[in-house]
Amino acid sequence: MNDMSGLYIPTYEDVIAAHARIEPYIHRTPVLTSSYFNELTGAQLFFKCENFQKAGAFKVRGACNAVFGLDDEMAKKGVATHSSGNHALSLSYAAGRRGIPVTVVMPRTAPEAKKAAVRGYGGTVVECEPSTTSREAVFAEVVAASGAEFVHPYNDPRVIAGQATCSKELVEDIPDLDAIVAPIGGGGMISGSCLTLSNISPDTKIYAAEPLNADDAYRSFKAGHIIADDAPETVADGLKVPLKELTWHFVSNHVEDILLATEQEIIDAMYLTWQRMKIVIEPSCAVPLAVILKNRAVFEGKRVGVIITGGNVDLNKLPWMQDKS
Amino acid sequence: MNDMSGLYIPTYEDVIAAHARIEPYIHRTPVLTSSYFNELTGAQLFFKCENFQKAGAFKVRGACNAVFGLDDEMAKKGVATHSSGNHALSLSYAAGRRGIPVTVVMPRTAPEAKKAAVRGYGGTVVECEPSTTSREAVFAEVVAASGAEFVHPYNDPRVIAGQATCSKELVEDIPDLDAIVAPIGGGGMISGSCLTLSNISPDTKIYAAEPLNADDAYRSFKAGHIIADDAPETVADGLKVPLKELTWHFVSNHVEDILLATEQEIIDAMYLTWQRMKIVIEPSCAVPLAVILKNRAVFEGKRVGVIITGGNVDLNKLPWMQDKS
Repeated sequence: MNDMSGLYIPTYEDVIAAHARIEPYIHRTPVLTSSYFNELTGAQLFFKCENFQKAGAFKVRGACNAVFGLDDEMAKKGVATHSSGNHALSLSYAAGRRGIPVTVVMPRTAPEAKKAAVRGYGGTVVECEPSTTSREAVFAEVVAASGAEFVHPYNDPRVIAGQATCSKELVEDIPDLDAIVAPIGGGGMISGSCLTLSNISPDTKIYAAEPLNADDAYRSFKAGHIIADDAPETVADGLKVPLKELTWHFVSNHVEDILLATEQEIIDAMYLTWQRMKIVIEPSCAVPLAVILKNRAVFEGKRVGVIITGGNVDLNKLPWMQDKS
Repeated sequence: MNDMSGLYIPTYEDVIAAHARIEPYIHRTPVLTSSYFNELTGAQLFFKCENFQKAGAFKVRGACNAVFGLDDEMAKKGVATHSSGNHALSLSYAAGRRGIPVTVVMPRTAPEAKKAAVRGYGGTVVECEPSTTSREAVFAEVVAASGAEFVHPYNDPRVIAGQATCSKELVEDIPDLDAIVAPIGGGGMISGSCLTLSNISPDTKIYAAEPLNADDAYRSFKAGHIIADDAPETVADGLKVPLKELTWHFVSNHVEDILLATEQEIIDAMYLTWQRMKIVIEPSCAVPLAVILKNRAVFEGKRVGVIITGGNVDLNKLPWMQDKS
């Protein structure tokens, strides 16, 4: 057991345990290939399709690992988080499957569709004002009143061990990958990939893909310490959050490089994926393909795993509608 | 060999030969399931995903069977068709793979994207005026000049034997289906399903799904003879064409029933499929799900194959954009 800033650093044994624990509640998602994208990039791409995952995103892996790892006494009090994204949905799904309460603190300004989706999985939405102060105050009240267990979207060893099962499945299905590319926001998926690959496929290089408009992980990586931005704006709305101590540990130790893409490159890659692969993916998971297209020399001739992190997108507001005619 | 109105009626031996012939050029597409849709319908649904097929639709099966079945002498002169839909793309793909010329006659008013897609596969587009008279005259000129082999989109035994390989794969992968539901326009896919199922899975009932706005197959089925409409209007733009003698033969002999869906029901089913299954499907292949949702009593408790016929859709013009907020 390693200790850092009070947070336990998960090991590969934790990943194996996580996989056994969550297997009944998640999909082993398929790996798709595309001769079109192989020709376009000169690489052999293997798309791990977490957009087909339960609750529509990989985050359900970490959420299930946290929820089903609780002992009965703790579980009775439920779980809680603050998120208006896929983690909120995933934690609600996981708690629903275990039959325990889940409370999600969300800004009252969050889209009604997100609130409805959490409720659809049986979660309780508690609204706060759209500020960090309000969110923290309201969340503290929720936890004080219920004794619910806080499950952070990514800075949590149980969550990272859960996300690590995604790369585990990928390398089990597709061995001998030269590289994996995954999006980076808070760093949960990348950290899970680092944890798995450094243990069972150490020659596979790990690239993180980040929007230029929210390049705090890139700048952290180059500076050698965490840099957090205040509310960056990008179409890849799952990637706005900063690294935290636990994800920084994995990123700083195991990531080969962080590659950046502009908003237009992200939108173009998303559009092309929908058009050619006929799958619905979020803007966030178009960032890896965008950087592969942009950095041909890095990936040409290589076997490359691409993590398609999720498919929860507002079908009424597609980003290319303003950009293409 | 059976003969009817001069057209050869394909047999299951033709389907086996077709499958062997086209296998190198097509995908064996995956069968997806959705616990969400199973709960919603009370049935067990198996989605055969031809939206992931080469050229984006099942039509490539029939086109490849026609193209690769030509002897070298005929093949040299190329193939030709008139279509502004998936058959045009599919025939262009097939001809491109064999390295023979292909000419597609299209109204000059057809979307530029469609013309560009045919050219992208190496096809030649010859424009006609948007009338049947002009189309037939221009097409006759093309064939007279080149000696190209005409491959009809569906009223062609080679094409039907090719489409029949789709249901063959489905019942090989998912045995003991109680029913199959596929969209009906000209009837190529339904005829192929009839051909396969009546031979290797005769207890599987075959339902055709049709837009209420283009219900000529429904009215033909009830009347006992072909009724063709002049230019019906429906969002399911692959389903506007009428039955012809060969497809009528299969429909009238083997289809259990034809079920109808309104435009709004089709759009809702399409939206729900994108949202929940995270796959891009055409309006035409949302019709089967729409009729399953509408006729719960028919399908409840049953194992039902659903043919997702294609995924070629204009991502800039989605039908719910006018309908949902």
